[in-house]
Amino acid sequence: MGLGFSEDRAWLCARLFAEASRDGVYSHGLHRFPRFIETIKSGIVDVHASPKLITALGAFERWDGCSGAGNLNAHDAMERAVSVATTQGLGCVAMRNTNHWMRGGSYGWQAADAGHIGICWTNTLPNLPPWGGTKPTIGNNPLVIAVPRAGGHVVLDMAMSQFSFGALESYRRKGEQLPVAGGFDLDGELTRDPVEIESSNRPLPIGYWKGSGLSLLLDLVATLLSDGVGTHQIPGEVAKETRLSQVFIALAPLETDRERIVNETLEFMKSASGDPAMVRYPGERTLEIRKESLTLGVPVGPDIWDAILNL
Amino acid sequence: MGLGFSEDRAWLCARLFAEASRDGVYSHGLHRFPRFIETIKSGIVDVHASPKLITALGAFERWDGCSGAGNLNAHDAMERAVSVATTQGLGCVAMRNTNHWMRGGSYGWQAADAGHIGICWTNTLPNLPPWGGTKPTIGNNPLVIAVPRAGGHVVLDMAMSQFSFGALESYRRKGEQLPVAGGFDLDGELTRDPVEIESSNRPLPIGYWKGSGLSLLLDLVATLLSDGVGTHQIPGEVAKETRLSQVFIALAPLETDRERIVNETLEFMKSASGDPAMVRYPGERTLEIRKESLTLGVPVGPDIWDAILNL
Repeated sequence: MGLGFSEDRAWLCARLFAEASRDGVYSHGLHRFPRFIETIKSGIVDVHASPKLITALGAFERWDGCSGAGNLNAHDAMERAVSVATTQGLGCVAMRNTNHWMRGGSYGWQAADAGHIGICWTNTLPNLPPWGGTKPTIGNNPLVIAVPRAGGHVVLDMAMSQFSFGALESYRRKGEQLPVAGGFDLDGELTRDPVEIESSNRPLPIGYWKGSGLSLLLDLVATLLSDGVGTHQIPGEVAKETRLSQVFIALAPLETDRERIVNETLEFMKSASGDPAMVRYPGERTLEIRKESLTLGVPVGPDIWDAILNL
Repeated sequence: MGLGFSEDRAWLCARLFAEASRDGVYSHGLHRFPRFIETIKSGIVDVHASPKLITALGAFERWDGCSGAGNLNAHDAMERAVSVATTQGLGCVAMRNTNHWMRGGSYGWQAADAGHIGICWTNTLPNLPPWGGTKPTIGNNPLVIAVPRAGGHVVLDMAMSQFSFGALESYRRKGEQLPVAGGFDLDGELTRDPVEIESSNRPLPIGYWKGSGLSLLLDLVATLLSDGVGTHQIPGEVAKETRLSQVFIALAPLETDRERIVNETLEFMKSASGDPAMVRYPGERTLEIRKESLTLGVPVGPDIWDAILNL
């Protein structure tokens, strides 16, 4: 509010940051908050902006994020997609000129909390070399797919890189190797060493050529649907990442017996191991961490907490 | 036609098989044709069936494939999605009770040929162990995303397994190792040896836990939207795979300058290497093979050709 957000927008913005940390996504929760404040001070994020409708055609709408806060814009966009879907079966909102949405999963949980299937993705700055290349010319373009379930939503929230830079840093700090190859070393060989990958700046797309292709298509579709800016036009520096293009799809549930179908599917998947706890569904661990956080509190590093108090 | 298809349906069905081989997807082209005929003879595919509309709600429609030929049903479904998108901005057709759609990319090319963005996916029989498990309890659920471009559409057509069983077989026959790890050996170690993976029956999802999660979500969304059958209810034997659930989404292009945006994006991606030919976009190789096929003819193994002539 001290930087100019209205009270309700400040509240929502703070809630989205806090919920990310509560759910264990520390990198896009409180840890990210000081950097978010920097983007306001540097003029990347406009605290007075709110999304503007550009085009509406049936269940499809194009919005301009007007350089507003990425998490507020994304929340508004999914809310609108859900609202359209409620009357029209599905709703698709494409948004241009927005900013980093922080934790993508937030908008999947949001759609599922509203009882809808939610699908959304964003493009990013070029931070990932495509398969066959060494320079980062595609984004890690996170994709979120959420299915509502009374017993706990199923929410996939995955970037196109096998490990985020935050994950690489975390393994490096612990002095550990990655569990699987996560990028290339300076000689162009696949490696599990986070330090080597940070040196080469060549993280690996999921599934090698497959994730590379999927990243490209997510960027193209978001850019075209929003009539916005593609990864190739977004500055390659993290501090300057802006004008992102995003897509939000909500689908109203019309099925007759959702809870049973989802539960049976999860149960069958888990039967792949003698110990069902070994096979996790996306969102399962989130709920466990959420429960821990609500009981024991949300862990925040003292340096981050001090930085926030001193903002 | 000898098995009961009407002339126009037989023609379309044959065309889709021939085009898959023409484009280099031999495994789902002529190579698959004898097995397709078997599914008619065994009663899995009903040559007299055509899709039936179950529910229409705005831009969303649910159809029953009525156990018709999978490629005809999928072609009809994407045609319908494109038609809805033409008037409503986007169209989404969910189809249940259909059969193997053969080459998924066909329906991406189809949407793009109509000038639309196309997104579609299918569930499959359980043929892939989820991350953390050893038994196949998820599908390899191919996902297709297509963007139209005058200079050649960008069409991603990817299954959730790093290598298809057809690809494993192909490497085995050539006595070659896979270029990257493609599954587990009998000791549970990652391996590049196709024979070991065929023995363990443990191919690898793309991106390990990520592709495993994406596969699950694609299955859940297809099953719920179509009110159909999930991977967990589909027989685990290839010859008995049926009652699949699929989703087809078409998005009408509303952007102002598509060709330029797509070309710039591809050019930038290719700048990741000193040799742009080293960085391929999805669909690029398809067009090269198509050109070769149309000039030199479509290669078909003599055993396959004999089998087709003797059907």
